[in-house]
Amino acid sequence: MIKVAILGGSGYTALELIRILLRHPQVEIAAVTSRQEGTPLVSEQHPSLAGRIALRMEPLDAGQLVKRGIECAFGCLPHGASMSTLPALLDRGVRVIDLSADYRLRDANVYAQWYGESHHDLAHLEQAVYGLPELYGDEITSARLIANPGCYPQTGILGLAPLVAGKHIELKNIIVDSKSGVSGAGRTPKLTTHFPECNESVAAYNVGHHRHTPEMEQALADIAGEAVEIIFTPHLIPMDRGIFTTIYATPLRTFSEAELLDLYRAYFAQAPFIRVGKHLPATKDSAHSNFVDLTVRVVRGKIVVLVCEDNLVRGASGVAVQNFNRMFGFDEKTALWA
Amino acid sequence: MIKVAILGGSGYTALELIRILLRHPQVEIAAVTSRQEGTPLVSEQHPSLAGRIALRMEPLDAGQLVKRGIECAFGCLPHGASMSTLPALLDRGVRVIDLSADYRLRDANVYAQWYGESHHDLAHLEQAVYGLPELYGDEITSARLIANPGCYPQTGILGLAPLVAGKHIELKNIIVDSKSGVSGAGRTPKLTTHFPECNESVAAYNVGHHRHTPEMEQALADIAGEAVEIIFTPHLIPMDRGIFTTIYATPLRTFSEAELLDLYRAYFAQAPFIRVGKHLPATKDSAHSNFVDLTVRVVRGKIVVLVCEDNLVRGASGVAVQNFNRMFGFDEKTALWA
Amino acid sequence: MIKVAILGGSGYTALELIRILLRHPQVEIAAVTSRQEGTPLVSEQHPSLAGRIALRMEPLDAGQLVKRGIECAFGCLPHGASMSTLPALLDRGVRVIDLSADYRLRDANVYAQWYGESHHDLAHLEQAVYGLPELYGDEITSARLIANPGCYPQTGILGLAPLVAGKHIELKNIIVDSKSGVSGAGRTPKLTTHFPECNESVAAYNVGHHRHTPEMEQALADIAGEAVEIIFTPHLIPMDRGIFTTIYATPLRTFSEAELLDLYRAYFAQAPFIRVGKHLPATKDSAHSNFVDLTVRVVRGKIVVLVCEDNLVRGASGVAVQNFNRMFGFDEKTALWA
Amino acid sequence: MIKVAILGGSGYTALELIRILLRHPQVEIAAVTSRQEGTPLVSEQHPSLAGRIALRMEPLDAGQLVKRGIECAFGCLPHGASMSTLPALLDRGVRVIDLSADYRLRDANVYAQWYGESHHDLAHLEQAVYGLPELYGDEITSARLIANPGCYPQTGILGLAPLVAGKHIELKNIIVDSKSGVSGAGRTPKLTTHFPECNESVAAYNVGHHRHTPEMEQALADIAGEAVEIIFTPHLIPMDRGIFTTIYATPLRTFSEAELLDLYRAYFAQAPFIRVGKHLPATKDSAHSNFVDLTVRVVRGKIVVLVCEDNLVRGASGVAVQNFNRMFGFDEKTALWA
Repeated sequence: MIKVAILGGSGYTALELIRILLRHPQVEIAAVTSRQEGTPLVSEQHPSLAGRIALRMEPLDAGQLVKRGIECAFGCLPHGASMSTLPALLDRGVRVIDLSADYRLRDANVYAQWYGESHHDLAHLEQAVYGLPELYGDEITSARLIANPGCYPQTGILGLAPLVAGKHIELKNIIVDSKSGVSGAGRTPKLTTHFPECNESVAAYNVGHHRHTPEMEQALADIAGEAVEIIFTPHLIPMDRGIFTTIYATPLRTFSEAELLDLYRAYFAQAPFIRVGKHLPATKDSAHSNFVDLTVRVVRGKIVVLVCEDNLVRGASGVAVQNFNRMFGFDEKTALWA
Repeated sequence: MIKVAILGGSGYTALELIRILLRHPQVEIAAVTSRQEGTPLVSEQHPSLAGRIALRMEPLDAGQLVKRGIECAFGCLPHGASMSTLPALLDRGVRVIDLSADYRLRDANVYAQWYGESHHDLAHLEQAVYGLPELYGDEITSARLIANPGCYPQTGILGLAPLVAGKHIELKNIIVDSKSGVSGAGRTPKLTTHFPECNESVAAYNVGHHRHTPEMEQALADIAGEAVEIIFTPHLIPMDRGIFTTIYATPLRTFSEAELLDLYRAYFAQAPFIRVGKHLPATKDSAHSNFVDLTVRVVRGKIVVLVCEDNLVRGASGVAVQNFNRMFGFDEKTALWA
Repeated sequence: MIKVAILGGSGYTALELIRILLRHPQVEIAAVTSRQEGTPLVSEQHPSLAGRIALRMEPLDAGQLVKRGIECAFGCLPHGASMSTLPALLDRGVRVIDLSADYRLRDANVYAQWYGESHHDLAHLEQAVYGLPELYGDEITSARLIANPGCYPQTGILGLAPLVAGKHIELKNIIVDSKSGVSGAGRTPKLTTHFPECNESVAAYNVGHHRHTPEMEQALADIAGEAVEIIFTPHLIPMDRGIFTTIYATPLRTFSEAELLDLYRAYFAQAPFIRVGKHLPATKDSAHSNFVDLTVRVVRGKIVVLVCEDNLVRGASGVAVQNFNRMFGFDEKTALWA
Repeated sequence: MIKVAILGGSGYTALELIRILLRHPQVEIAAVTSRQEGTPLVSEQHPSLAGRIALRMEPLDAGQLVKRGIECAFGCLPHGASMSTLPALLDRGVRVIDLSADYRLRDANVYAQWYGESHHDLAHLEQAVYGLPELYGDEITSARLIANPGCYPQTGILGLAPLVAGKHIELKNIIVDSKSGVSGAGRTPKLTTHFPECNESVAAYNVGHHRHTPEMEQALADIAGEAVEIIFTPHLIPMDRGIFTTIYATPLRTFSEAELLDLYRAYFAQAPFIRVGKHLPATKDSAHSNFVDLTVRVVRGKIVVLVCEDNLVRGASGVAVQNFNRMFGFDEKTALWA
């Protein structure tokens, strides 16, 4: 049994992590931390867990966690807080899967530019592995610190990877139009996520300056071996969970749809959670699962890729457990194949 | 043209009032007040009004409003703030329709008990008329201060009025089970109205101690000429607007459904906005309108009344304009018959 | 490994059953039948299952199923079709869990009265066990034919059982006001479940004559040892899944809330899926789980019980697997404790 | 008073038309036709109209309608049925606003190619005027037959018109990514619009072959004076109404956002229903109105146009009344400015 801690237990990604890890036969959730006052039961904060977890939330104390035998910590802290908090655990030998954005961008200048503050943990930033298993699987196995990928970026990167890997498209003329459920905005109430504001409405936000843009470009540049540029437009959709991403790319030669489906199937042949289908996907079909559903169309010579995932499972906590499984030698699908 | 002011212009009832009053051929919206910083355009706060209203929000200054010729003010302030703010207008001769709860309960002790603070404007409380036009229509005509009724109470009172008026039911054995859209909770973000919390969920709240209970009982006692007691359970439903109220009453003699429908139709014969039908109503059919839809069933000897309204229009701003029309001598339906 | 068949595989309860059974370590789904033309892949009908189940849908052939070693069949057929189809399997020794209503009402006359057709399998009706594990647990263990309970009835029966068992309430003055998500209406498109009709709306339906009424009364009479009468009003709520039931009962003596909570906790002490809490439940907290959440309040002397469940899991397929576990000697929670 | 008829009165566009026309001071709705059996009250088919319209639905009889003095007919019939039905009215001198697609595509071959059947009313096709008032306003005034525009096309055409008119963009490299509420799919129940299928889900449909593609290209070619090609991807969103269209275009020279906003404001200076704003629009702000909200962004050198409308009002019935107002000499905003 691996003892794990969940840091920052009051939000949606923490709840989803607990749900998944309770199904994991080799994991004991030994601590859930929170800055909440007092030490409320985890099940008071998350009533859906009543009867399933007896832990109380506790303040984060790295020394204590190590003494209690924690081998792995899942960070569900806000960005900024992560790089202040995680070094104490990493330096004591705890392996960390960080669900914040703090260790995703390798270039600290890019981080500063997009997140509006300097990075102050360059030492660990250097060691961090970007936790997208389909692309960085080998490095994940031995990583001490995983920068768990963002929800939108996974749809953009996975949807484009086969095209970019083969240099089949113009690398600076890519459009990523995403539609996300509201849980992606987190659990802190604000006007834009107040029910009567966002229900029965679609709106775009952060057009041209969403922070997931450089994250996608970094991973795609890794694949391409050269710079990639995307135009990314996120939209808020009145549903709890799910991301639907529509990608438009300009091929460098003519492709048939059959050819593209073959290309995608071959590329993801070893990836159990990537389902390449002929039919148009719907977010409902991957909801509450770790699957990514995608297909490809050719329209007037452009390639249109359509990608779906659950933003809380595959987009955050599910892929975190997938990374955990790789790091600790379990079958990648453990606790996720349901 | 009657010049009106809307006090507290940033919430949903104010928006709905503006929408309705912009259709009113005899009204000029001359001022919209708000405690917002600066003097933002009303259409910045409510983008749906872009191009339709050029006013800026301004701080409330009673003297100024009177100088500018305001004859009627609609109060969309929180309870407590209303009774602090409205006297200055009333004392200067402005007629007021108050959408808060401050002047609804005639007994200041009952107010203190349910709202947790003493009433501090007893002088005006005494003059206030409860603004339910189907019951208090004549007094409304000459009122200086209207206590506009709550959203839930209108469904309970109107649904029970014909039964209570005729003393046809046990007056202390009445159940009012209501289901409301989320806009009823106002525009201030909180966890219970955060989209991913209340979407795809039904929950009851304030069971046994919702503040609309004494309001219903007061009006029903007016009708009955004796005390009436109700058990009121409100539920939050994942939709923007609409209230569905299911009432269970115990008749003192046997009734057929046909007899009850006749009773209701006779009772509401002069009420243009009350639609008594044979079919089961749905909240969608009265959405965005000032209509109340209701029907009656007999089940195992109990009377079941099913009532629908739009909580923002009929439940608040629509009935406020209905009251305004009565007060200023316009056809009751003006601006509302659409 | 127990080989099971799912009969009538194209609807929501079949999908939910497959999802749950795929997690069951001792079950092999060996057949999924359907009257669909051709033999489509199960995952074509249910794209969320892509990559998880390779079976094709096949016409139902009882002899074939027995030859292939099926020991248990889950019936997801419409009522009427069940009693025509299941005898062939029962008579060949296959144990059956029937999710239709055909074997729930012990009195064939009551069946005829509420379902509008005569019962034509009286032989098996006599042997059927009503599959509510918290009440009929022992008989379930050895049953050959389980009449899996309806979604609404479980909330009504479980919510009232402790009160009825102790004869604490008036048995002919009970109100059950239920609010259900739309999946409860099945997968066949019709106007009332067409998205733009039922979205953003609440409506009551079948007031006074919903078929789940006699089912609740039968089980409650079993508990009471005498006749029980309920007034049942179901409402359709714009959400996928979940039932919220609000029960109003009149106690024969005064109870405190603490006393009632103790009574409920004692009654359900051995029932792992019944969570008695002090807080008001929300359907979201039991969504996608086999839990029933409930609490009790006293309002003006009446007892108000508030009960939540997921209509597809606990209300149908989850409790079916709970019954299966009891029948085949597995821990009741297997495949359901997640 | 102009007497009008509504043909095909059972769907959503007919309901929306009736709502709007009931507010029109110069219109009498004199007939509503339907192929429904019997002659049900319009308010039975549309309970929201109870108390507001006393008409019964009647079979369509062109001669009768003319005798009763109908001057204008609104066609809410399915495509195909329109071109079979409308000639009898047109030939008797009734002016027609056809909300179907039958007269939108000037080239009968293009119609045949996209709609799968030959056009069989070429005579009237030739006279039809495409009813987009902001572009074809003068011709609309004197038209006998209006081909009322599609919902999606209006967002695409209006969003691109200023760019195409000035030849500012590549005309064969345009992406139109649309998100629509479910009412756009009509009122006939089918699996894809069954609540539990499309709620809590986003899906693309008809990718690369939606029939609104040639409609957009025809109007844009009119503006450009040369062929225009678009890649159009519609998505279904779990909400009742509203379309959000995100357009990606490649400018032929560098533009600033301020410059583009000026361009759009100048282009639409005379168009009361087009609201060009700096802020990102949301579909909720134009819901239930005839407004189109739009803004423009420049992202990595591409122009991104974001356009919102209500698909039933502006996308169908509202613009139909706007056309009617132009045809019969009323202020364009009559009955729509609310």
